Amino acid sequence: MLCLKNFVRRVSGFKSKEVEKLIPQLEQLLGSNNVKTSDASRQQHSHDEGHFLYLNIFRGELPDVVVLPKSVNEVSSIAKLCNDHRVSIIPFGTGTGLEGGVNAIHGGVSLDLMLMDKIVSVNAEDFTCTVQPGVTRKKLNSFLKNSGLWFAVELLVPCLDPGADASICGMAATCASGTNAVRYGTMLTNVLNLEVVLPNGEILNTRGKGRRPRKSAAGYNLTELFVGSEGTLGVITEATVRLHAYPSFISAAVCNFPTVYDAVNAVVAVLQCSVPVARIEFMDQLQVAASNKFSHLEIKELPSVFLEFHGCSEDDVKNQAELVGSICQDFKGGEFTWSHLPEERDKLWTARHNALYAVLATKRDSRCFCTDVCVPISHLADVITNTRKDIDESGVFGTIVGHVGDGNFHCMFPVDEQNKDEMKRVWGLSNRLVERALAVGGSCTGEHGVGLGKREYIKKEFGDEGITAMRAIKKAFDPNGIMNPGKIFL
Amino acid sequence: MLCLKNFVRRVSGFKSKEVEKLIPQLEQLLGSNNVKTSDASRQQHSHDEGHFLYLNIFRGELPDVVVLPKSVNEVSSIAKLCNDHRVSIIPFGTGTGLEGGVNAIHGGVSLDLMLMDKIVSVNAEDFTCTVQPGVTRKKLNSFLKNSGLWFAVELLVPCLDPGADASICGMAATCASGTNAVRYGTMLTNVLNLEVVLPNGEILNTRGKGRRPRKSAAGYNLTELFVGSEGTLGVITEATVRLHAYPSFISAAVCNFPTVYDAVNAVVAVLQCSVPVARIEFMDQLQVAASNKFSHLEIKELPSVFLEFHGCSEDDVKNQAELVGSICQDFKGGEFTWSHLPEERDKLWTARHNALYAVLATKRDSRCFCTDVCVPISHLADVITNTRKDIDESGVFGTIVGHVGDGNFHCMFPVDEQNKDEMKRVWGLSNRLVERALAVGGSCTGEHGVGLGKREYIKKEFGDEGITAMRAIKKAFDPNGIMNPGKIFL
Repeated sequence: MLCLKNFVRRVSGFKSKEVEKLIPQLEQLLGSNNVKTSDASRQQHSHDEGHFLYLNIFRGELPDVVVLPKSVNEVSSIAKLCNDHRVSIIPFGTGTGLEGGVNAIHGGVSLDLMLMDKIVSVNAEDFTCTVQPGVTRKKLNSFLKNSGLWFAVELLVPCLDPGADASICGMAATCASGTNAVRYGTMLTNVLNLEVVLPNGEILNTRGKGRRPRKSAAGYNLTELFVGSEGTLGVITEATVRLHAYPSFISAAVCNFPTVYDAVNAVVAVLQCSVPVARIEFMDQLQVAASNKFSHLEIKELPSVFLEFHGCSEDDVKNQAELVGSICQDFKGGEFTWSHLPEERDKLWTARHNALYAVLATKRDSRCFCTDVCVPISHLADVITNTRKDIDESGVFGTIVGHVGDGNFHCMFPVDEQNKDEMKRVWGLSNRLVERALAVGGSCTGEHGVGLGKREYIKKEFGDEGITAMRAIKKAFDPNGIMNPGKIFL
Repeated sequence: MLCLKNFVRRVSGFKSKEVEKLIPQLEQLLGSNNVKTSDASRQQHSHDEGHFLYLNIFRGELPDVVVLPKSVNEVSSIAKLCNDHRVSIIPFGTGTGLEGGVNAIHGGVSLDLMLMDKIVSVNAEDFTCTVQPGVTRKKLNSFLKNSGLWFAVELLVPCLDPGADASICGMAATCASGTNAVRYGTMLTNVLNLEVVLPNGEILNTRGKGRRPRKSAAGYNLTELFVGSEGTLGVITEATVRLHAYPSFISAAVCNFPTVYDAVNAVVAVLQCSVPVARIEFMDQLQVAASNKFSHLEIKELPSVFLEFHGCSEDDVKNQAELVGSICQDFKGGEFTWSHLPEERDKLWTARHNALYAVLATKRDSRCFCTDVCVPISHLADVITNTRKDIDESGVFGTIVGHVGDGNFHCMFPVDEQNKDEMKRVWGLSNRLVERALAVGGSCTGEHGVGLGKREYIKKEFGDEGITAMRAIKKAFDPNGIMNPGKIFL
C-alpha cells in the first residue's frame, strides 16, 4: 500500500487561520458572491473524479475557501495576496481529472476558473484558437462545427461522469492526450502559447503575448514546461492551441486477434506502412466480453483492435482501411470489418465508446478505478499479457483498453470503495502495473498525470537528478511553495 | 545596426589565466591529444557557418582551449572542473549553425563532442533510436537505410558548406526543423529523451534513464526545456529521437502562382483538406530566376510552391497530388506539374535543392547571409510581400524561400563581407524582417535559433516576464553562468 501512506500527511505553514484573514480581502477583490465558504462549495471543490474520493482518505481535507475570478487580473491579485500570506492555491477547472490533481489536501484557496469561459479568438487560416480556462473541449468543438476545423485532442474514456467534459486549459495542465494522439499529437504538441499567472501575480505569456507561430526556435520552451505542470508552477488563464482540418472522410474498422502479441505486431506493421492512422485502440478479451453484454454485441471475445482513418476522399479512407485490413490478415487477424458509412462506423465503435459503462455494468453500484501507464511498443504485448495474468490471479475483475499506437493503456476496475480488501488488491494491481511499465523503460502515466496517485513513482522514473532538476524549477517559479502543494512530488 | 553594438562586449570573470591553470588537469583527464591549444584548432572552433565569421567582428575571440571528450563521464569531469574554476564551456558539434551559437565570444573551453559518435541503439518496433552527439543526420539515415525507418527532421538548405551535415544533438540544442516539419514535426516533437551533463557535472536524463515511451504525463517536461536551450543549461551527450516509417511511395509537384497571396491561400486550402502533405516549400520569383539560371531550368519566374506527398501506395500519392493540383487551380495556380517517378521528382525539385547555390552563383566570391522568421500563416503573404518590397528597394540582391506550411521562411543574401555598406544594408533588411514578424505575432526565428544573431529581439518577443522566467531557469541550472555565456540573452 505504498501509495497511501503519505496521503494524510499535512504540510505545516498552510493554516486555516491565515486564510480566514484573507477572506474579506478576497471578497473586496471578487465580490462576496464569488468567494464561497459553504460546506457544499468546499466539498464540491475537494476532489476530482479519481478514486481518492471513493477511498475517503481525504474526507475532511477541504479547501478553506473557493474563489471564482472573472479575469486574469483578478487571478493575479489573488495570487499576490496568497503569496504574500503564504496561503496555497489549488487551480480548479471541470474537476474531471483522475489522479487527485485538484484535491485540496492541505486546505487553502480553491481557484475555480470556470467563470472565465470565453473563446477569445479563432484564427482559421492559422489553424489556432485561444480559449479561457472555462472552455471545455466539447464547447470548443461545438463552436467550431461549421468551420471545417476541430480541436483534435479527444478523451474518449476518462470522465466517469457521463456528462463531464474536460477544459482545454485543464488538459494542458495535465498533459492530456487520448485516442487521436497517434496522428494529431498530445497536448504537448497542440499547445502553442499559454497565459499563466505566476505565484507572485506576474502574468507570463509563455511564447510572448499574442504570439502564435506554428513553430519557433527562440528562447526556452516555457510553453512545454507549463504543459503537464499540474498547477504547481502557476495558474493557466488562457491557452492558444492548434486546430486541425476536420477530416473530409472517415472510415472505421475492427479486427480481433488470437493473442495480444499478434494484435501488437499488427499495429507495429500498420505504423510502419505510412498509413496516417487517426486512431488505433485496443481492448482485451474481458473488455470485449463486458461490452458485448452491455451493448448487445456479438464481437468475438478476443483481443481486438479498433481503427479509424481520416482522409481527403472516399477512395482515400477506403484504401487506408483495405491496406490495414490486409496487414492485419498477415498477423493472424480475424475478420476485418470496416465501413466509411457514418451509422456503420458508429456501430463498429459502439463497444469502444461504451467501454467504461460496460465495465461499471458488471457490478452494481460500483465506481471505476482507472489507471494508466505508457510503455515502448516493443514491450507492450508483454506488459499487457503479464498485467492480464496479474488481474486474473488477483480475483478482482478488471479490463484493459488502450491507445495502442502510443503504447499507452488503461486498466479499469469496477470497485466498491467500502470493500477494503478489494481496494487493497486493486491498489496492489495498480502498483505492480506501474512497476512493470517502469521496468521496461516506460512511464507511470501516459495521459492522466501524477497528481496524488503517482507521486511515489516519480523518483524511480526520473532518478534523483531528474527530481532535483524539477525541484529547482519549482523553487525558481514558486519559492514559497504555494502552488498546488503536495502534487507531483512527495 | 542594433544587432552589432553589443557583440564586442566581454564579460569579466572568464579569463584566459584561469583556463591556463586548468590545462594540465584537462590533459590528465582526456589525454594530451584531446586537449588542443593550437591556433588552428581554436580558430576552427571559434565560429559556425553564420555570417558572424564573415563580419570579422569576433576576430580574435577564440576559445582558450579545445577539448574532445570520449564519454559522458569525461564530459561530466570537464564540467565539474570548469564550474569549480568558473571557466565557461561552449558545446561544439558540427559547427554548422547559422546564428553564432558555438562562437567562443568570451573565450573558455570549446567542448567538441564529435568523438562521441555512436549510434547507441535503434529500436525499430518502437520507432526510436538513441545517438551520441557525433552522429549526424545523414550518418543516422544512412545507417537506417534498410530498416524501413528514417529520422524525418531534414534540413534542406541551411548548411553553407555543401559537405556539411548537422548532428542530431546539435539540432536538438537549436530546436531545428526543416522541410518535413509540416508533417513530421520539429526537433521539439521528435526528441523523446536527452542525456545532459549539467554545469555541476551531474548527469541528467530528462525523461529518466533509458526511458522512451512515445508520450508521458509524468513530471515536468525537461526534455522540451533542453531542446532549443542552445547549450546554455547543460551539454547534451545523448538524444533519443523518434523515427518514422520511410514512405513507401513518394510523389512531388510544382506549381506557380501570379502572386504570393494566391500561393499562400492555396497552401491554406491544402492544409484544410486533410491531405497529409509531407513538404510545402515556397520560392519567390527572384529565387526561381536564380535557380533557372544556375540549374538550366525554365520555370516561370513567379512565386512557386514545391510539394511532396508520402503515402502507402502509388494510388495514394497520385491521389494526393491530383487533389492538391485541383485546389491549386482554384487559387489561380499555373501549370501543376507532378510525378511519382524518382528521376522526374528529383528534376522537379532541382530548383529547391540547389536554391542556396543558385543564390551564391549570382555573385562571385560571395558568402550567404541567411536569416529566418516564423509568422502565423494568415500574415505570411503580407510579410513576404513587404519583405520582397523592402529588399527590392534596398538595392541589395536577396531571395525568399521557406517552409510555407509552417509560416517559416528564409531570406538569403549573397554578400561580400568586406563591403561595409552592403553589410549595413543587409543587417537593416534583417532587422526590419524580424520587426515585421514580431509585429504580427510571429517569432524572430523559426528554426535557426537565437545564438548571437537574434539576442536583441528576445525581450521584445517574450516581454519582461518571459525573460525573467527564462533567467530564473538559467540561474537554477547554471548559477555560475558558465554554460555558453552570451548566447540567447544579452
